[in-house]
Amino acid sequence: MREGLKIFKIGGGIIDDESQLRQFLRELAQVSGRKLLVHGGGKGASQMLRDLGIEPQMVQGRRITDAATLDIVTMFYAGKTNKQVVSLLQAEGVNALGLSGADGNVIQAVKRPVKDIDYGFVGDLPAHAVNAEFVGQLLEMHLMPVFCAITHDGVGQLLNTNADTIAGSLAQALAAQYEVELHFCFEKDGVLRDLNDEASVIPQITAAEYQQLKAEGVIAAGMVPKLDNAFAALEAGVERVVIENALRINEPVKTILCGF
Amino acid sequence: MREGLKIFKIGGGIIDDESQLRQFLRELAQVSGRKLLVHGGGKGASQMLRDLGIEPQMVQGRRITDAATLDIVTMFYAGKTNKQVVSLLQAEGVNALGLSGADGNVIQAVKRPVKDIDYGFVGDLPAHAVNAEFVGQLLEMHLMPVFCAITHDGVGQLLNTNADTIAGSLAQALAAQYEVELHFCFEKDGVLRDLNDEASVIPQITAAEYQQLKAEGVIAAGMVPKLDNAFAALEAGVERVVIENALRINEPVKTILCGF
Repeated sequence: MREGLKIFKIGGGIIDDESQLRQFLRELAQVSGRKLLVHGGGKGASQMLRDLGIEPQMVQGRRITDAATLDIVTMFYAGKTNKQVVSLLQAEGVNALGLSGADGNVIQAVKRPVKDIDYGFVGDLPAHAVNAEFVGQLLEMHLMPVFCAITHDGVGQLLNTNADTIAGSLAQALAAQYEVELHFCFEKDGVLRDLNDEASVIPQITAAEYQQLKAEGVIAAGMVPKLDNAFAALEAGVERVVIENALRINEPVKTILCGF
Repeated sequence: MREGLKIFKIGGGIIDDESQLRQFLRELAQVSGRKLLVHGGGKGASQMLRDLGIEPQMVQGRRITDAATLDIVTMFYAGKTNKQVVSLLQAEGVNALGLSGADGNVIQAVKRPVKDIDYGFVGDLPAHAVNAEFVGQLLEMHLMPVFCAITHDGVGQLLNTNADTIAGSLAQALAAQYEVELHFCFEKDGVLRDLNDEASVIPQITAAEYQQLKAEGVIAAGMVPKLDNAFAALEAGVERVVIENALRINEPVKTILCGF
């Protein structure tokens, strides 16, 4: 039987609020068994770009990662945020190890090809981007890997990469070795049936039910790419995907997605 | 018989010059056997502090690491520089892994006690600060650890720490397990007998000869703390200390310090 592995992903909202971040990490320290964390970036990098007078490069409403922006996001994600998270986890007794994709060549990305838009130094993750064997070695050393959303291309270029994509790729790559639970942690208690009612958390959604909820318009907008991504992970062998409140990961209220 | 381990330390000068940094890393990739790297910071952090309008806090001519400064140096050393070095080493075929002291709790420092001056968030390294067992595990996984000069106190505080001190502490801690060579790489070919003659490199200096060279004033100023540190490492079991040009580590011209 495969051993369990819980993969947690947190976004920028919680990183921007130090007291919430500390609360999440205290809860995370209580989670037993093998675990790893993927964190996105917060608003700090954008603020610093503005403070330094670097204008955001936007094309068709989407941000372009030029060289100056890559420098700043690398500093924030791989430097400030990653090391802050690791040191706070150490303080909670968790032997955390911070990683970018370049470290140990753990995630090798491909610079997004230029079609209509040149997104700049942005990395996409092909199949086999993740060195699952290395992550497994770290986990068996009782370390908790903490991934920031910076990868590399293997020939010396760092790349800004979507944190949800990193979490999904890690989950899929590690599913061969572990029974993986992928936890997307955000500011709500789960997937809501009614966006205006925080108590309307749907406890469980199967793939068939998800198609129906999408068709009915109950699940719409920003949740759709997140859940499409989640069900793709389930199809690729991830055991369970959980959508939950970052501040209440040890409480029972959450949405569990399952493939069947 | 203990296996060999080469520990290289580079300073800010080479980090500030990308073409020199790339040349050093290409040379480093050619060095065979177990190796690790410690890098200091460059001028980038100071420049960014100025760009952001953060005034350096100086007391009696020495810089104080206040919270804003710690944030910026963490971003530069652990983020930008460390990840750039790791990704360039990966491009050279070296499986590098970037580390701050917080990662894997590999170096646990103590915040410098406030006596006459409060240096702020600066870490000193007590005996047993280095988790040598963990570094050994990484080396036996054929990884090359790359340390930045940021440590932590184990209870959630990151600390700015002198890179020479980190290199010396690593060398001493790993000397029990490996036959350690500690390489201080800088812009000159070694210790010069005449500062105005780049060709006057002293090939070898014993502890007794060092005392004599100091007494004669041949070795003075900035080299004294560096060499005091180096001879302390030799006394603590480090096999050999090498002072050499960062761009010519694979050439024979260098100064070798030995304890006897």
